[in-house]
Amino acid sequence: QSNVTIYGAMDMFVGYAKGEHKDLTVLDSGGLEPSRIGFHGTEDLGNGLKALFRLESGIAVDTGGTVPPGVLFSRQSFVGLQGGFGTVTAGRQHSPGYWMSLLRYDALMGGPFSPVTALAAQGGMSIVSTGPGRANNSVNYNSPNWGGFTLSAMYGLGQESTINRNAGQFAGASLNYANGPLSVGYVFHRLDTSTVAAPIVDRQQREHMIGASYDFSVLKLIASYQTLDGEVSADGKLWNVGVRIPVGAAGNVQIGYAAYDSDARQSDSRSYALGYSHNLSKRTALYARVIRADNDDAVARSVFNGLAVPGGTTTLVGTGIRHSF
Amino acid sequence: QSNVTIYGAMDMFVGYAKGEHKDLTVLDSGGLEPSRIGFHGTEDLGNGLKALFRLESGIAVDTGGTVPPGVLFSRQSFVGLQGGFGTVTAGRQHSPGYWMSLLRYDALMGGPFSPVTALAAQGGMSIVSTGPGRANNSVNYNSPNWGGFTLSAMYGLGQESTINRNAGQFAGASLNYANGPLSVGYVFHRLDTSTVAAPIVDRQQREHMIGASYDFSVLKLIASYQTLDGEVSADGKLWNVGVRIPVGAAGNVQIGYAAYDSDARQSDSRSYALGYSHNLSKRTALYARVIRADNDDAVARSVFNGLAVPGGTTTLVGTGIRHSF
Amino acid sequence: QSNVTIYGAMDMFVGYAKGEHKDLTVLDSGGLEPSRIGFHGTEDLGNGLKALFRLESGIAVDTGGTVPPGVLFSRQSFVGLQGGFGTVTAGRQHSPGYWMSLLRYDALMGGPFSPVTALAAQGGMSIVSTGPGRANNSVNYNSPNWGGFTLSAMYGLGQESTINRNAGQFAGASLNYANGPLSVGYVFHRLDTSTVAAPIVDRQQREHMIGASYDFSVLKLIASYQTLDGEVSADGKLWNVGVRIPVGAAGNVQIGYAAYDSDARQSDSRSYALGYSHNLSKRTALYARVIRADNDDAVARSVFNGLAVPGGTTTLVGTGIRHSF
Repeated sequence: QSNVTIYGAMDMFVGYAKGEHKDLTVLDSGGLEPSRIGFHGTEDLGNGLKALFRLESGIAVDTGGTVPPGVLFSRQSFVGLQGGFGTVTAGRQHSPGYWMSLLRYDALMGGPFSPVTALAAQGGMSIVSTGPGRANNSVNYNSPNWGGFTLSAMYGLGQESTINRNAGQFAGASLNYANGPLSVGYVFHRLDTSTVAAPIVDRQQREHMIGASYDFSVLKLIASYQTLDGEVSADGKLWNVGVRIPVGAAGNVQIGYAAYDSDARQSDSRSYALGYSHNLSKRTALYARVIRADNDDAVARSVFNGLAVPGGTTTLVGTGIRHSF
Repeated sequence: QSNVTIYGAMDMFVGYAKGEHKDLTVLDSGGLEPSRIGFHGTEDLGNGLKALFRLESGIAVDTGGTVPPGVLFSRQSFVGLQGGFGTVTAGRQHSPGYWMSLLRYDALMGGPFSPVTALAAQGGMSIVSTGPGRANNSVNYNSPNWGGFTLSAMYGLGQESTINRNAGQFAGASLNYANGPLSVGYVFHRLDTSTVAAPIVDRQQREHMIGASYDFSVLKLIASYQTLDGEVSADGKLWNVGVRIPVGAAGNVQIGYAAYDSDARQSDSRSYALGYSHNLSKRTALYARVIRADNDDAVARSVFNGLAVPGGTTTLVGTGIRHSF
Repeated sequence: QSNVTIYGAMDMFVGYAKGEHKDLTVLDSGGLEPSRIGFHGTEDLGNGLKALFRLESGIAVDTGGTVPPGVLFSRQSFVGLQGGFGTVTAGRQHSPGYWMSLLRYDALMGGPFSPVTALAAQGGMSIVSTGPGRANNSVNYNSPNWGGFTLSAMYGLGQESTINRNAGQFAGASLNYANGPLSVGYVFHRLDTSTVAAPIVDRQQREHMIGASYDFSVLKLIASYQTLDGEVSADGKLWNVGVRIPVGAAGNVQIGYAAYDSDARQSDSRSYALGYSHNLSKRTALYARVIRADNDDAVARSVFNGLAVPGGTTTLVGTGIRHSF
């Protein structure tokens, strides 16, 4: 037991979602941070070497189920070694793009109230802090901090099928530089979106993202730009700008704007959000957030499932609590 | 890890079930208490305020699966705040009626050997200590103890569907008074039994229950009466009387009788049970229990799945162990 | 929390699988030991009596899912009592044959690189250290150590169906003698392979196994012989010989050979493996292993799913890490 630490977060909000013709009151999970429970541990092997593991379930607090249903440790499941060379792990893991888009270059830090997350996920991107930003059967390398530079590289074997050996294959790498108030980063993903069921030879998708942030103390300015170049879906460009503003010792305002520019006709979307969070302690925060998305006539990206109509505008407003443990 | 407590119970019994034409020997889970494993924690936020969470899986010890299958934290999954005002939580939760029917006014305290549980569950009631006594997407309020009075109120948003926004909606409230040997309580549930798949406008079901218990020291007398008034199923009335008798320092005898009076023709049922439990310690008990149910000719409520025949009598006898942790 | 210990193992390897016409690179779970996470606890009841429980999930580290999918505590889920008389437990449990074939008489100790495990599992045997070596709804007795002798006996009620009460019923017993360098054992299984869906009256399968090992210090010699006598599948005989050779303080070489001799025409198979494991600590090991299987013309047992062809040879080579906690 002393070898294992239990950790996680429980996040619930009451929300109101409004589309063109319908609206709905909801209680939902994960408005500020993904709800989850996990187990992790490390072992000191001597000579600076460590073994480590992590098992983490995504939880829909509102129903008690996993996110997505059917997989126990749906977020992270890996084992590996850490040393002076960095960290090598194998299993199901967040991709380099997941971390970039969640922690570094999104003022809202992911979830249902993040404009860049909403548009990246619905634009078919894998540089995103949702499920498509994870990879099964993958090996990941994280470098140590080299004078501000950190490198991550991941290779995922996909579905490991003898029928279509390309199905789901993934490769990604990121390089980030952080020094004092400045952080700049670049990430690249290449994945094969073919499946065992539909063995098409070549369905490669390439994605790039650059991000930068600068902390002016009174506010932190954040921006990112990412592209998708696929052989199935239309190509797309997504840019995102936001600020995080400390308010007193415990408060934080988040503002974000993102725009998706699709190569397809009349298929652009825009989303913008405003949030406030207030820490009751290091572990517990209250928050209130609102996000809206609007679309060109041929596309229906939305901020709430079931409310999307082509060309329509959707809004989600919510207030809740996040408790970490 | 110091933030999280692991708790639960493992309960298994060997049983023999007999119907009109068939019988079966079984090993089953949860004869005295529901088998489960959970994680909970609290955080002191100062000024009498606390954050709290709970995640709890129902376990079928005999197969290792969850009860029901497919949901990880199928029993409880919530986060909330506690203070002088009481406790407010959001998530998947036991209803006010669940607690009343399990802990307060059932001599057998739920499970497969409880007459009132067997008849309430098969009578379509939600004031019951089984799955239908829980609600997804719900907010619950529990008052502090006001001179013996405690109030609970819950509102559940149901399936949160834009197709049928009433599907599964739930509201319930209870008021209980406990003072020395006496406890009396009342609970009300209103739920919409329509679903997304079958969007019928109005399928409201209303339930009331009153319960009372008095502890004479040599025995505790327990009784309850509950009604169901639905727009789909036939209306029903269920009454229940029982005693709990301490035997020495470690033993306890439980006797229960329940009768379901349906508005439908020839559809009444009766069930009666006798149990004995013996504590080996605070955490571990052995038990032996027997329950029987009989029916009018047009109905087939039973004490074991797969043995029911209209008008038939079924019996379940079992002996087992419950270990809490 | 002090009542519960969290334990488990995370094991991942990168491997290369080759069949007659196809090959595949894989990242897989459990090359040295099954990946798993569990919770167990004991309570001292006085007079030498203890209550105990265990809940254990099999984990596919590469995807984060359970093995098999859909069951939370798919490996072990039981509660029971331990005393001078031995240990009696009830739930889902490893059979006497599971323990024999995994821990005592297999030089590779199970998993995808074990010749005897590969051939026993694909030969339809239940004396095997995989899923078919476990039983739902079962009671197990393990004796104390009687001067080197230990006895295990298990009875499993199967699917507990009123439609076909024989479906899945299981009985097994083992007797082992271990004294100094010598260990010899015998195990017997009888199971009914009929199901509720296909209620055939009599589908009994009988299996016997004898095993022996002798530790010469410079190497440990291990051998086993087991038979299957079924009413549906062809009868079979499986023998297995192996050695475990300590190399220095931290290393261990494992060599195994197994041959399946089927009563069906042209249906024999052979498998052989070589492994090396190196302990970085008590809890963490690196390993490299290779296994191959070949077949007579009418049968297609393989060492990797999806590569089997009748009469074909398959090879799996892998290197990985196992971290226990």
